[in-house]
Amino acid sequence: MFENRIKQQLSFLAELDKLKGVLRQSPLVDQSRKENSAEHSWHLAMFALVLSEHAPEVDTLHVLKLLLVHDIVEIDAGDSPMHAQNADQDAVREKEQEAAKRIFGLLPSEQGKELLNLWLEFEDAQTTAARFAKALDRLQPLYINTLASGGTWAENQVTKQQVAERYGPVIDRGAPMLWKIAEELVAEHFKKKGET
Amino acid sequence: MFENRIKQQLSFLAELDKLKGVLRQSPLVDQSRKENSAEHSWHLAMFALVLSEHAPEVDTLHVLKLLLVHDIVEIDAGDSPMHAQNADQDAVREKEQEAAKRIFGLLPSEQGKELLNLWLEFEDAQTTAARFAKALDRLQPLYINTLASGGTWAENQVTKQQVAERYGPVIDRGAPMLWKIAEELVAEHFKKKGET
Repeated sequence: MFENRIKQQLSFLAELDKLKGVLRQSPLVDQSRKENSAEHSWHLAMFALVLSEHAPEVDTLHVLKLLLVHDIVEIDAGDSPMHAQNADQDAVREKEQEAAKRIFGLLPSEQGKELLNLWLEFEDAQTTAARFAKALDRLQPLYINTLASGGTWAENQVTKQQVAERYGPVIDRGAPMLWKIAEELVAEHFKKKGET
Repeated sequence: MFENRIKQQLSFLAELDKLKGVLRQSPLVDQSRKENSAEHSWHLAMFALVLSEHAPEVDTLHVLKLLLVHDIVEIDAGDSPMHAQNADQDAVREKEQEAAKRIFGLLPSEQGKELLNLWLEFEDAQTTAARFAKALDRLQPLYINTLASGGTWAENQVTKQQVAERYGPVIDRGAPMLWKIAEELVAEHFKKKGET
């Protein structure tokens, strides 16, 4: 019974290895390759650890859990590029729901439900913790783009105004003081590129 | 003052991107490539999240912090292969100490000290949390090896007895019930390979 429980947990942990093979659109800062979703999740957890003082009302452990779990469904559903023009959002959502059911279903049932609920909380973005986590999930690729010659913005001809529209509301809602700094970084970046 | 603080924190977070380029000896489960230390750290954090019920006396947040931070010094010092015969342990230790000073030194000073202390606690392995974290840091590559045709054991002609000696004490000290299961996985693996 107890051994069986650990074996279910290990099966889930083996499955998670696949997240290391899911590529995102974001580059590494040194632009040597695209980032994968597993290392992105670690980087985000470090953002949370270092920056959570700027959201004193949120519980750091809870934010860490949300961020560690938030991309696991991509093992089946893949990453959804932020600057894609024609993504069918309903189809993506359905694929992710199926993925969550299958992957969290590998765990002992009450533990699977707990992780599923963390993912749903992140997706719904109604709690303060989830809004802060979502803000970091936007801030990290924004910051990387400013360090990597524009990254996905350069690749997709994204303008300064589009950056403000696509990142601003989510970062500002979850972490207003971080959006203040991010806005400056974005302005500096586009100024260097000659777009004001 | 406040802006300056966030900018120091962002400099540190930019530096962390380099951990995605530090390769370990361990393969991915699908054996397509070696694992890097950033995605390894995420995988370990998930081990902690899922398995911390087997160490009820440890604080999950603290274990997560230890694991998220434990490999950061490798940005300067590189990964130390576990099955290397001739590593100069004193030289490695010195290089890691220098790395910790430089990298955690990018943060506001009291926050840098906090992260440095997490790394030192992990290295010293005297607290229950650090011993549990260390156990997971051994369990994860052990488990991957059993799933990836022997992984680093096959590459380095490591025997079943050497596995028991090199992984057993650390896992057993920090998480005895996990060592019980790990021992079985190791026995099964070497039985399949024809070594009993």
